Amino acid sequence: MTPAQVQWSDAEKSIAEDAIKRAHGREVEALIAYVRENANKISRPEDVWQLHDFLSARRHNIDGKYDDREAFLMFTISNLIKDKLLSLSELDGLTADKRAKITVLTRM
Amino acid sequence: MTPAQVQWSDAEKSIAEDAIKRAHGREVEALIAYVRENANKISRPEDVWQLHDFLSARRHNIDGKYDDREAFLMFTISNLIKDKLLSLSELDGLTADKRAKITVLTRM
Repeated sequence: MTPAQVQWSDAEKSIAEDAIKRAHGREVEALIAYVRENANKISRPEDVWQLHDFLSARRHNIDGKYDDREAFLMFTISNLIKDKLLSLSELDGLTADKRAKITVLTRM
Repeated sequence: MTPAQVQWSDAEKSIAEDAIKRAHGREVEALIAYVRENANKISRPEDVWQLHDFLSARRHNIDGKYDDREAFLMFTISNLIKDKLLSLSELDGLTADKRAKITVLTRM
């Protein structure tokens, strides 16, 4: 069974979706803190365009990262754990088998 | 003679280019001030993406606005005057005919 074929109960989907939302909140909060801190240091024209390039890249990355469609849940979650936006302990309630598969994926 | 066909002496081109550079500096300075001021107010995720959208739009606009190729000088300068980024008094040294043409273009 590939990670995309893993079956999710409604309760598990809800746990996964909550965890993904929490990770998204963390990433955007960190981004907000970064922008607030670094906007104060902008003084040259190239600083503004660097901020724009940075936001473009972050937005593109974030847009693709929080896919909560069922077939992508295993990948989304394992990537968020790899990025330290989520910890496995936040996924209590998933079957041991799913948690083991996620752990394997985080090492790939 | 269309505005694109107007002939420029080297001295006039230099005056025009300096004026365009000055206007560019003013616009980017105002943009920097805006970003520094408004970044402090960012608190919600949508605020970050609004800042990104704003910078995308400003960048696109600014990229197209400061064309200093000879055939575009009349248009570039008259648009900058319309946008209050330049005043006609900064174009001393251009022929009276050019200044009159620029004035007409600012009314279009």
